Amino acid sequence: MKKNLLVIIGCFLSLSLFAQTNDSIMVKKIVDETMTNGTAYNNLRRLCKEVGPRLSGSVKFIQGAMLTKKMMQEMGADTVYLQECMVPHWVRGAKEKGDITLKGGKKYQFKLCALGNSVGTGDKGVSSTVIEVNTLKELQELGTDRIKGKIVFFNFPMNQTYIETFRAYGESGVSRTRGPALAAKYGAVGAIVRSLAINLNDFPHTGTTVYNDSFPKIPAVAISTNDAEYFSKELKKGNVEKVFFWTGSKMLPDTIGYNVIAEVRGSQFPEQIITVGGHLDSWDLAEGANDDGTGVVQGMEVLRTMIALGIKPKRTIRAVAFANEENGGRGAQKYLAEAKAKKEQHFLALESDGGGFTPRGFGLDMTASQREAILKWKPLFLPYGVYDFSKGGGGSDIGPLKEMGTAMVGLSTDSQRYFDIHHAATDVFENVSRRELLLGAANMAALIWLVSEYGL
Amino acid sequence: MKKNLLVIIGCFLSLSLFAQTNDSIMVKKIVDETMTNGTAYNNLRRLCKEVGPRLSGSVKFIQGAMLTKKMMQEMGADTVYLQECMVPHWVRGAKEKGDITLKGGKKYQFKLCALGNSVGTGDKGVSSTVIEVNTLKELQELGTDRIKGKIVFFNFPMNQTYIETFRAYGESGVSRTRGPALAAKYGAVGAIVRSLAINLNDFPHTGTTVYNDSFPKIPAVAISTNDAEYFSKELKKGNVEKVFFWTGSKMLPDTIGYNVIAEVRGSQFPEQIITVGGHLDSWDLAEGANDDGTGVVQGMEVLRTMIALGIKPKRTIRAVAFANEENGGRGAQKYLAEAKAKKEQHFLALESDGGGFTPRGFGLDMTASQREAILKWKPLFLPYGVYDFSKGGGGSDIGPLKEMGTAMVGLSTDSQRYFDIHHAATDVFENVSRRELLLGAANMAALIWLVSEYGL
Repeated sequence: MKKNLLVIIGCFLSLSLFAQTNDSIMVKKIVDETMTNGTAYNNLRRLCKEVGPRLSGSVKFIQGAMLTKKMMQEMGADTVYLQECMVPHWVRGAKEKGDITLKGGKKYQFKLCALGNSVGTGDKGVSSTVIEVNTLKELQELGTDRIKGKIVFFNFPMNQTYIETFRAYGESGVSRTRGPALAAKYGAVGAIVRSLAINLNDFPHTGTTVYNDSFPKIPAVAISTNDAEYFSKELKKGNVEKVFFWTGSKMLPDTIGYNVIAEVRGSQFPEQIITVGGHLDSWDLAEGANDDGTGVVQGMEVLRTMIALGIKPKRTIRAVAFANEENGGRGAQKYLAEAKAKKEQHFLALESDGGGFTPRGFGLDMTASQREAILKWKPLFLPYGVYDFSKGGGGSDIGPLKEMGTAMVGLSTDSQRYFDIHHAATDVFENVSRRELLLGAANMAALIWLVSEYGL
Repeated sequence: MKKNLLVIIGCFLSLSLFAQTNDSIMVKKIVDETMTNGTAYNNLRRLCKEVGPRLSGSVKFIQGAMLTKKMMQEMGADTVYLQECMVPHWVRGAKEKGDITLKGGKKYQFKLCALGNSVGTGDKGVSSTVIEVNTLKELQELGTDRIKGKIVFFNFPMNQTYIETFRAYGESGVSRTRGPALAAKYGAVGAIVRSLAINLNDFPHTGTTVYNDSFPKIPAVAISTNDAEYFSKELKKGNVEKVFFWTGSKMLPDTIGYNVIAEVRGSQFPEQIITVGGHLDSWDLAEGANDDGTGVVQGMEVLRTMIALGIKPKRTIRAVAFANEENGGRGAQKYLAEAKAKKEQHFLALESDGGGFTPRGFGLDMTASQREAILKWKPLFLPYGVYDFSKGGGGSDIGPLKEMGTAMVGLSTDSQRYFDIHHAATDVFENVSRRELLLGAANMAALIWLVSEYGL
């Protein structure tokens, strides 16, 4: 009896070893195909150079959607379609300008950019004395007495000691997202925010600010980290007389946007949908190469690789280029609404929105047993530089699907370079590495194939 | 008795946990100090911009050595000194030129660079018909009959499916290191080598070629991967009449070079030396930022971080900027010779010569028990992105120390971008990420501290 049991256990172990070996062969095939023939890099070049910046509401966004649709069709997906949704239409207007008047009258001109969704200054601009704060608590303690009528300068440097730079972004990012609204509560007339760049450079980095409807909407801008350092130094020396800035940004009525979707239908469980991709929209200051053209072309690459290898996935795989992640999330909401209306089963969703940098792992937001299932595959990924399967992951675009019980996965990339270029004029195609981009796509394709083949 | 044993085991576990916790606190201190106050990035800027290319034998190399010495002194090391050695003095000469004459007489000019240590063509250049080979075996099979009097075009594309790009470099690299000598054996009059770049670009990448004294030294050059693709295509179409190139490179008599050394003396075991660093010399086409300015400034950063934190290491730590890695290895040989002459005990050596890219691990070439000792520290490195402690590692500069029984360690970096810029005009400061560079140095400092504190 004991012996029989051992034989049975032995058979199971052999079978499991056999499956693992076969899987590792298949994963290698997928990775080899992506690394050798992947078109993601060239597709990204087209998106960045033929179209460029793709802010929601702009003509360029629509051009980007049409090009993405065309590229998806070229790939040979079963179905390619647009999902229309209304998106905010914020425009930057004419080139912003600003200067600091130093004691004695000398002026220092700084580069700036209006924060996304922010109001403009009006013709005359904003001009006032300035108060620097380093935390939101400090702002609250200063209160109306000290803030009223002033411009608040939010100087929240990103923490260099966090190895995951997204953590530093989250922590300092409140200055941009919530700072201006809080300053308005205390009567500030404008807000200047130190860019969320982890290194010192000369580029202002934009990004959304969120107003509070209970208080006035005050103009809010970002300045470069180098200018923030200069500004702070001169303020500490008591050398700043006043600050002026002008912006022409405004919010126009909502307009049309699109999610762009390509699908390969599942051969066994077509009703079970796996979503993979990123967001098509970008800020207006650059080509949105890493944020998030890379996620879009990587999602498409997952499908292309499968098609090229003749893989018929058991479950339906959808590459989605979402609309309007940056300043509204309307594409994500639309995707959820359609899923609910059509009673779709969303099995798993994988987003790449951490830039096209070398992959390190997958962040997993799902049930414990689903996570266990994925962790069993970890040895399959180690040869391709993916080792970190931490809890927590996903992305803004797939986030809403969570209410349908969808398992969420986010591609974790090496984040050291992201906040050099994020939301700035330097987020261009030239700052993407072909092999880093493809290696991310290859690992995404491997995971998607495993999930499609075995479920969770 | 059993209870007592459990208590004793419990105590040991607590102590070991306590040590591990204390170590993780210390490692975090080291990483935080490097990431926040590290000067490696600025030192690299100085080396690249104040000096620039630092080919062995050149005045620039001497300037680089003097600047390195100065930067080491500024750091506050106990001792800073030069170790003189004779180095080869190869010079490129005037700008190279080359063209392909197509059938019908039309000419296509290509960019090229003489391979390191190669002879020049003489005034008239080399002009002949061309034969393409894709492996050394193919060349051997063609033999003298087919090769004699021709120019051999070595077209060995790097394998895209290797995730460790160094593996592809090793495999295709024989075209550059051994190809020209083998072509000469069969009577070739010149060699053109496809650059060892993993992507398509327009830059020729240089690097050493090794002649065989039994055969003539023929001129050997590299062309860009884009030109190699074009060349191969035209050859396949039978469209190439002949090829011409001219180079003015030559080997002059040996001249003086230096290893530059900074030392913090050990407080308990000063006789046990830990070496850390990279090589100061570079090719002449660019600033040698990633190859290997980064290794030099990271080695210095290890010392700076310790000094800044007031750490008195138990063992002696030496930051070394080696001479002449690229085309001779004389600095490494000199370092070994001095070590033997002074009967030094070289405990461990750590080299960073894989570019200043984000670290992934350490390659370990040492006894099994030494490796075990390091593997116990693995959990201390995981928070800082270092997880891969594979067998095999070191570097050309520390390599000779192996005969003294020294434990060898190489910093393993993410290699996806290295062969875009390696030995080409694009290996400049701008292609180094501050945080990636510092994260490498931080992990190096942590390992060096652990080894110094606990031995192996």
